[in-house]
Amino acid sequence: MLATVTAILEWLGVVVFAITGALVASRKEMDIFGFILLGVVTGIGGGTLRDLLLGLTPVFWIREPAYLIVCVAAAAAVFFLAHLAHSRHRILLWLDAAGLALFAVVGAEIALRAGTSPVVAIAMGVITATFGGIVRDILGAEIPVVLAREIYVTAALIGALVFVGLIRLGMLRDEALIVAFFLAFGIRGAALLWSWSLPRYRPRAGED
Amino acid sequence: MLATVTAILEWLGVVVFAITGALVASRKEMDIFGFILLGVVTGIGGGTLRDLLLGLTPVFWIREPAYLIVCVAAAAAVFFLAHLAHSRHRILLWLDAAGLALFAVVGAEIALRAGTSPVVAIAMGVITATFGGIVRDILGAEIPVVLAREIYVTAALIGALVFVGLIRLGMLRDEALIVAFFLAFGIRGAALLWSWSLPRYRPRAGED
Amino acid sequence: MLATVTAILEWLGVVVFAITGALVASRKEMDIFGFILLGVVTGIGGGTLRDLLLGLTPVFWIREPAYLIVCVAAAAAVFFLAHLAHSRHRILLWLDAAGLALFAVVGAEIALRAGTSPVVAIAMGVITATFGGIVRDILGAEIPVVLAREIYVTAALIGALVFVGLIRLGMLRDEALIVAFFLAFGIRGAALLWSWSLPRYRPRAGED
Repeated sequence: MLATVTAILEWLGVVVFAITGALVASRKEMDIFGFILLGVVTGIGGGTLRDLLLGLTPVFWIREPAYLIVCVAAAAAVFFLAHLAHSRHRILLWLDAAGLALFAVVGAEIALRAGTSPVVAIAMGVITATFGGIVRDILGAEIPVVLAREIYVTAALIGALVFVGLIRLGMLRDEALIVAFFLAFGIRGAALLWSWSLPRYRPRAGED
Repeated sequence: MLATVTAILEWLGVVVFAITGALVASRKEMDIFGFILLGVVTGIGGGTLRDLLLGLTPVFWIREPAYLIVCVAAAAAVFFLAHLAHSRHRILLWLDAAGLALFAVVGAEIALRAGTSPVVAIAMGVITATFGGIVRDILGAEIPVVLAREIYVTAALIGALVFVGLIRLGMLRDEALIVAFFLAFGIRGAALLWSWSLPRYRPRAGED
Repeated sequence: MLATVTAILEWLGVVVFAITGALVASRKEMDIFGFILLGVVTGIGGGTLRDLLLGLTPVFWIREPAYLIVCVAAAAAVFFLAHLAHSRHRILLWLDAAGLALFAVVGAEIALRAGTSPVVAIAMGVITATFGGIVRDILGAEIPVVLAREIYVTAALIGALVFVGLIRLGMLRDEALIVAFFLAFGIRGAALLWSWSLPRYRPRAGED
């Protein structure tokens, strides 16, 4: 069992993103197979893009179908249990935050292990962290969370950047994964709690 | 000529999806090259994603450019002939149903032949059956048919599932393809005719 | 240094598309890392799809991370400088026109060099020229420029077609690249200046 912490974080990321996909399906009042499609696509989307870009094909869930089964189970569970939630929208945002932070560090780690340069590993972390949510929001015809006012992309970037930096400073991989994950999740969580945001571009009056 | 029935079904799927792409272009009043772009992308989209995920690159239409030429011809024909149709929207829905059923079984068959597990083959059928239409509707800024009230994803799932099941029960591949295709097409067709739908998620009052 | 002119045109295409991505981010009043994400995705999107379809993985920016760095720098510069522009929308359209023409010829050239047939090379030019802008407009929730009333897809098609034709007629690659680029850019530019358009599909009254 190589790469155990990476594998655990990837599994968690797939599950929480699958649940967010199913929650978007619930907002669109889809049937159970709509939940499953959105759950699967959101859960495996980021890792699939990562594997395609790195040339690691067939992609991870073809090599290990258990990922698919877990996404299906998670999405089906949401179909029957979502009504118990007080606020599906709040759960969606927090699970999305966890998935964002998990995939940012896992994406960067797998890219480094595949031999990419640090810059590419950081980009891979950000791209794979944001891709599942982007596809979910497009398929569900929701406003993409990537356009959110609060800090979002930045949290993924910091997670991937700090992970790569800690590895280069000589920290053990497992420790670097955990530290960078909590940092990214903490930043996005704080942004959700206290509406943290960075300065935004402001057009002048009359500009188009 | 190996895999003849698969090849015929794939050709049919490419053509009917290309026509649906061109019909969306007609709803957006695009010019002929807009028709061709939407026709090509919709026709080859599902099979392209399938080949990328399985690592079968260069993808099928690079190996066999005749697919492109057929998409171009079909889209151009729609540009000149669409005005003859009584209801373009109805034709679009029925051709999309045929393409959905065709790609569900072809996608599963090609995945099995590439050596994937049955679960992956079923997922590949569903993903490739729905992907062309998803891209078409996004590019055409239409409401994605995958969000339709009537049974849609479910028909593709049943087609892929039954095909894989029949193969494992020992049925000949060509027969399994035909049976599973007609089942999937019949389910989606019945859903269109009689507004069949599965129970949908219903939020409680006040839920968000 | 093989393929120098191709490399220069590809670099230019990446930079101008990265700037258009950042300009869309400015229209959405995103923060600087939103600019960077949209700039990177738009800049590298077309070439990434091209490499995936041709099976040239890891994709170009993993092999040559400088592309990423340039996209980041261009997007960050737009964040600080966009307010100086009189009309961001006009700049966006003209840079998009340049990127469209650049990627149409570069995409066709790289496909030919990878051994594809002429038809595939032309399709690859059109697909990679339009893909970056499509992703940009979807992520930015803008009306896709590919749906524009003026000639758009056609300009990319003519650029790729003329490039492939000139190569087959025996013209030197570098000259064919330059001629076909200016032709495609000129056509799209003229369409912007004088609202050139091709005949569009017109539904009859009462048609749906």
